[in-house]
Amino acid sequence: MRATNSVFAPVENDLLNLNKNLQNMIGARHPVLYAAAEHLFTAGGKRLRPAIVLLCAKTFSPTNDISTSQRRLAEITEIIHTASLVHDDVLDECSTRRGIKTVHNVFSTKIAILAGDFLFAQSSWYLANLDNLEVVKIISKVITDFAEGEVRQGFTRFDLQFSVEEYIGKSFYKTGSLIAASCQGAVMLNAATKDIANGFYMYGRYMGLAFQVIDDILDIVGSTNDLGKPVGSDLIQGNLTAPVLFSIPEVTELSTLIQEEFSNANDIQKAIQLIRHGSGIQQAKDLAAEYLQAAMNCLEVIDNSNYTKLLKKLTLHILERIN
Amino acid sequence: MRATNSVFAPVENDLLNLNKNLQNMIGARHPVLYAAAEHLFTAGGKRLRPAIVLLCAKTFSPTNDISTSQRRLAEITEIIHTASLVHDDVLDECSTRRGIKTVHNVFSTKIAILAGDFLFAQSSWYLANLDNLEVVKIISKVITDFAEGEVRQGFTRFDLQFSVEEYIGKSFYKTGSLIAASCQGAVMLNAATKDIANGFYMYGRYMGLAFQVIDDILDIVGSTNDLGKPVGSDLIQGNLTAPVLFSIPEVTELSTLIQEEFSNANDIQKAIQLIRHGSGIQQAKDLAAEYLQAAMNCLEVIDNSNYTKLLKKLTLHILERIN
Repeated sequence: MRATNSVFAPVENDLLNLNKNLQNMIGARHPVLYAAAEHLFTAGGKRLRPAIVLLCAKTFSPTNDISTSQRRLAEITEIIHTASLVHDDVLDECSTRRGIKTVHNVFSTKIAILAGDFLFAQSSWYLANLDNLEVVKIISKVITDFAEGEVRQGFTRFDLQFSVEEYIGKSFYKTGSLIAASCQGAVMLNAATKDIANGFYMYGRYMGLAFQVIDDILDIVGSTNDLGKPVGSDLIQGNLTAPVLFSIPEVTELSTLIQEEFSNANDIQKAIQLIRHGSGIQQAKDLAAEYLQAAMNCLEVIDNSNYTKLLKKLTLHILERIN
Repeated sequence: MRATNSVFAPVENDLLNLNKNLQNMIGARHPVLYAAAEHLFTAGGKRLRPAIVLLCAKTFSPTNDISTSQRRLAEITEIIHTASLVHDDVLDECSTRRGIKTVHNVFSTKIAILAGDFLFAQSSWYLANLDNLEVVKIISKVITDFAEGEVRQGFTRFDLQFSVEEYIGKSFYKTGSLIAASCQGAVMLNAATKDIANGFYMYGRYMGLAFQVIDDILDIVGSTNDLGKPVGSDLIQGNLTAPVLFSIPEVTELSTLIQEEFSNANDIQKAIQLIRHGSGIQQAKDLAAEYLQAAMNCLEVIDNSNYTKLLKKLTLHILERIN
């Protein structure tokens, strides 16, 4: 999900400001946590989530203005996401993320737990200070969804009974919920009607699911350099994602490798090759395309004027790239 | 801080209801997290925090009624406290808490991180649903204070330069802030004036600091049975608390043992004996008494009628017990 610069061009300056603000927001209180957070914030994450929030804010404004609280929401979204990554990396025992070593690897597991707690706490505090109770409620729900997603993932590792439906459910909790709620929140901060806000929620939900499926495809077909982490990082942890789940019924050997938890040295490479040569990748691409199409449909319902032009452009751009 | 039943008698039934509600609030979504949380909730924690919140609510009501949202605030306070304990135990590598094995010991470090995140997340969500933005703000601040306190503690282990002032600062973040904000929140939910709310905040702040000092004294003079964890659990981690800090200037050998991080088998027992025989315990008791007296003074400012009778009784009871 890189190099979507052209579609993010309308909010490019806003994203640069966001980077500066993130450092100020987190760094003010403690140098070591600042170091841990900076480590992630300056590693040039995709900024996909705040970019979408900013685009939602910009497109749902007759004057194309983004308000201070909408900018803050974009920052909160990135802080929550980063907090979840820090704890996620401890849970998944990842050693690299965004091309650099993970917090728990550079510092320690303890610092990673603390930094994650600190970031979650800061996000709650900034959230409360948006002074909009409805937005506080929907974003608070996201944080509980994250924990739910992590739990579901944690307890279904290497589980061959794990279904595509369960994968989608888990992906909603881990990825869809945050993007959905922050798209909804962005327009709620601009006094959108309930129907419009729900439309943005559904748009974000489908976009989030599509991003998750695309990320999961990249875990199998990407290169370590592009991914910023080793290929098959999720698979080796037993996270059975869309391309894997679609491949299981057609490749018996894959089930065996998973069942044995890739116990031999070359098992993970063998599994990746098996998946790459089957139809699982294409089926996963079709699933992502379906979600992107569903996201487009949500925009039609929201409005058929030029309100949603930027979001349509983003969605179409991603759709073209995966096909 | 056990067996304060008589002073908590006015809210005894409310505390029994709270126990039931905590199980329903946490158990509804996931059996394993429920098991992890239940493990703590049913272990018969002191329920000190919700008891004080309920007492504040009851005393600041002409009819002695506790509202639904005040009860919910008491539950949220206990959830936040439990969440912090779960992560705290991972950070401190504790193996027992409240007389039973800690979550990360019975389950795993991963489950402990997840359970803590889940509890923090749930507390944020229930908090938002109190529908009172000011209360959301003050309690959100508490969660950031926790993280700050953990960080300060984490980076000053075995540090002989750590001062009593820094210890008090850290204790505020780790213990005082939650009790202060929840006492304040309880009366804010009953439309207290700003002055009254601040009075309750200061009362909770001093009570919290007193509790921390008393807990820290018990870590040295208590029995494993009473504490529900081994004597010297904090000291062995290098957490230099009030009785230790007061003892350092008078016992040279203690500094050496701390500097060497209790590297020999009997070092921790030796350190405990040295502290027990010096004046550090008494000095710490005096500090706790000072805080309890300061808490009493806050009640005088709040009101001189029978509003604050129950809280005075509680404070006096604790003051008598430590002397």
